[in-house]
Amino acid sequence: MREVVIAGVGMHPFGRFERKPYQEMGVEATLMALKDANVPWKDVQAAYCGSMFAPPTAGLKTLSRIGLTGIPVTDVETACASGGSSIVIAYQAITAGFCDVVLALGIEKMPKGFIPPSALGEPWQVDAGLVSGPMGFAMAAQRHMQMYGTTVEQIARVSVKNHKNGVHNPYAMYRKEMSFEQIMNSLMVADPLRILMLCAPNDGAAAAVLCGKDIVSKYKDVKKCPRVAGAVVKTPGYPGWAGIPFYSCGITKPIVSPTKTAAKAAYEMAGIGPGDLDFVELQDTDACSEIIWSEQLGLCKEGEGGRLVDEGLSEINGKIPINPSGGLLSKGEPVGASGLGQIAELVWQLRGDAGKRQVANAKAGLSHVIGNGGNCAVIILKR
Amino acid sequence: MREVVIAGVGMHPFGRFERKPYQEMGVEATLMALKDANVPWKDVQAAYCGSMFAPPTAGLKTLSRIGLTGIPVTDVETACASGGSSIVIAYQAITAGFCDVVLALGIEKMPKGFIPPSALGEPWQVDAGLVSGPMGFAMAAQRHMQMYGTTVEQIARVSVKNHKNGVHNPYAMYRKEMSFEQIMNSLMVADPLRILMLCAPNDGAAAAVLCGKDIVSKYKDVKKCPRVAGAVVKTPGYPGWAGIPFYSCGITKPIVSPTKTAAKAAYEMAGIGPGDLDFVELQDTDACSEIIWSEQLGLCKEGEGGRLVDEGLSEINGKIPINPSGGLLSKGEPVGASGLGQIAELVWQLRGDAGKRQVANAKAGLSHVIGNGGNCAVIILKR
Repeated sequence: MREVVIAGVGMHPFGRFERKPYQEMGVEATLMALKDANVPWKDVQAAYCGSMFAPPTAGLKTLSRIGLTGIPVTDVETACASGGSSIVIAYQAITAGFCDVVLALGIEKMPKGFIPPSALGEPWQVDAGLVSGPMGFAMAAQRHMQMYGTTVEQIARVSVKNHKNGVHNPYAMYRKEMSFEQIMNSLMVADPLRILMLCAPNDGAAAAVLCGKDIVSKYKDVKKCPRVAGAVVKTPGYPGWAGIPFYSCGITKPIVSPTKTAAKAAYEMAGIGPGDLDFVELQDTDACSEIIWSEQLGLCKEGEGGRLVDEGLSEINGKIPINPSGGLLSKGEPVGASGLGQIAELVWQLRGDAGKRQVANAKAGLSHVIGNGGNCAVIILKR
Repeated sequence: MREVVIAGVGMHPFGRFERKPYQEMGVEATLMALKDANVPWKDVQAAYCGSMFAPPTAGLKTLSRIGLTGIPVTDVETACASGGSSIVIAYQAITAGFCDVVLALGIEKMPKGFIPPSALGEPWQVDAGLVSGPMGFAMAAQRHMQMYGTTVEQIARVSVKNHKNGVHNPYAMYRKEMSFEQIMNSLMVADPLRILMLCAPNDGAAAAVLCGKDIVSKYKDVKKCPRVAGAVVKTPGYPGWAGIPFYSCGITKPIVSPTKTAAKAAYEMAGIGPGDLDFVELQDTDACSEIIWSEQLGLCKEGEGGRLVDEGLSEINGKIPINPSGGLLSKGEPVGASGLGQIAELVWQLRGDAGKRQVANAKAGLSHVIGNGGNCAVIILKR
């Protein structure tokens, strides 16, 4: 099958930019990615734009500001996984031979506050008290603590680590360290999750230029272009909320989460296992989610996610660094853009361009985003 | 390249169903398509769901009611071309070999009245008086009348024809003939377009099951499965509105509309020309649009679209039947679903299942949808 590489990436900082239209953020991220890829805009043959809250045809309204070249510009939406989904579709268009050069873009301006229940969907979820993200995350955290003995201190330490990493990320919203005490004493939102254990919904954009490996040397040294080794989207096989595994609550057979199935398929596609990864960017919408997903991604055994942070294994210089970018806890989460923000981090890490947050000699990285309803995108890049 | 066929199609009637959630309409269309294809739901490996106004993750919220099977369910949006875009992405996933069986779904519940300006986008459009669809369509009609001598009587006759066809379509919103006088005397909306020359935004759903041609015989006789011969999306190469060619207004070089570029690419992909088509379903958002698009699709020379209807050439028994389904003028336009409604009509016509609106011995048909901003999808099916 035709191989696909990422020739360039770009990011608009994640944060709150109330007076800046999403189109301007998208244009900045795209121009940065095109420059990084050394690809002229006229050579891009299709664009897929991930967004959850932008108005219809947001991608075309954004990219028309760069220039009208007649290419298809398709908006793609799978909630928080939208960016990952746009990468997967772009990847398929190139492997199928329809295109040589495709732009994947993610843009978002989030509504103020937590994501509103109207966007989360089914009436039973609201009836069940799942009226915003943190309620669901807290239920999963409570269950994880009960089943595996995970502690609130471990959850806080994930936030300490990610904020420490985020200090060195110029695209992050929060760029200062948060002490364990600050986090443990911050406002309680949904027990056990306090406000500094939750990521902030915000605004931002990120972009990647994908190319067929066979043609990329027209633009850039192929050695500088990480290869898309795995690119998979899955949804849950069980009724639930936001793809979060509620473990055995009332369900007798073991639940296989979409994170597990997507990761398994992506590992197979890449011909590697979790032990071959040098670092991971995963969806730390809340600090306990990092613990849960690290298990579901196979970075440790189920129930041992807390140990990764306790023993420093998920630090930048640890055995399996998690969220060296600072994760969503530092960057905030513009949902349509967050997946492409992870891809940008993967590319910078694999090229050795990540500055003070560089993972030494990174050769393989994984990106993981999961959205409401449970579309989970896992992308593996290798240098 | 791997060939792709359409094994089955389904439709929920287009109309106003205020108390029916979009999910129910989507489920009905999907179950009908699965039954038609003889494909069990568990065999579907991915789904792409076109919608413009449905809430986030609408596809997954719909299909989870049929059953959670863990497949990726991605929402796709290119305004009125959303259904066509979902077909193109599904097609690419199969040709690339990632899937054997993919569902393309379109669902919509339109806001009341004409599409609101907020959904149409750029502030300059509102400043220019393009505050809803009919204003833009009327500007194009005026220009076409001035340049080519197209008459309001010709425009009315398109509406007469399409309403006559729609009588025989059980999925159409309006199923009665409209006389020339009724149309010419109906309420003026935007000169020269009267209310009975405009399609009604409404609710509906439609679905298609796409399969690799090499594996479809597991489910259904391959002879009953029209082949996707061309599947292309393009956008404009000029600044404008809704992809409508405003002809030479202030622009010195000839405008090449996305309908023209998408059709050209689709004809090349299919290895045929417009003369090889037996019928066409095209975007008659208003009756003059049918005249304009028939020219841009190459069914006649530029400026001669009015002649097609005058001479009866676009009737069901004419040389090149246009909108034998009754078109959007009869069916109404649930924008995310309209493209897949056309695909359903193409499949029924090519199988000889179109009843009293059957085009004799139809072997090749074309579907054309174009959205705000100008994403234009052209799909050619051959039996």
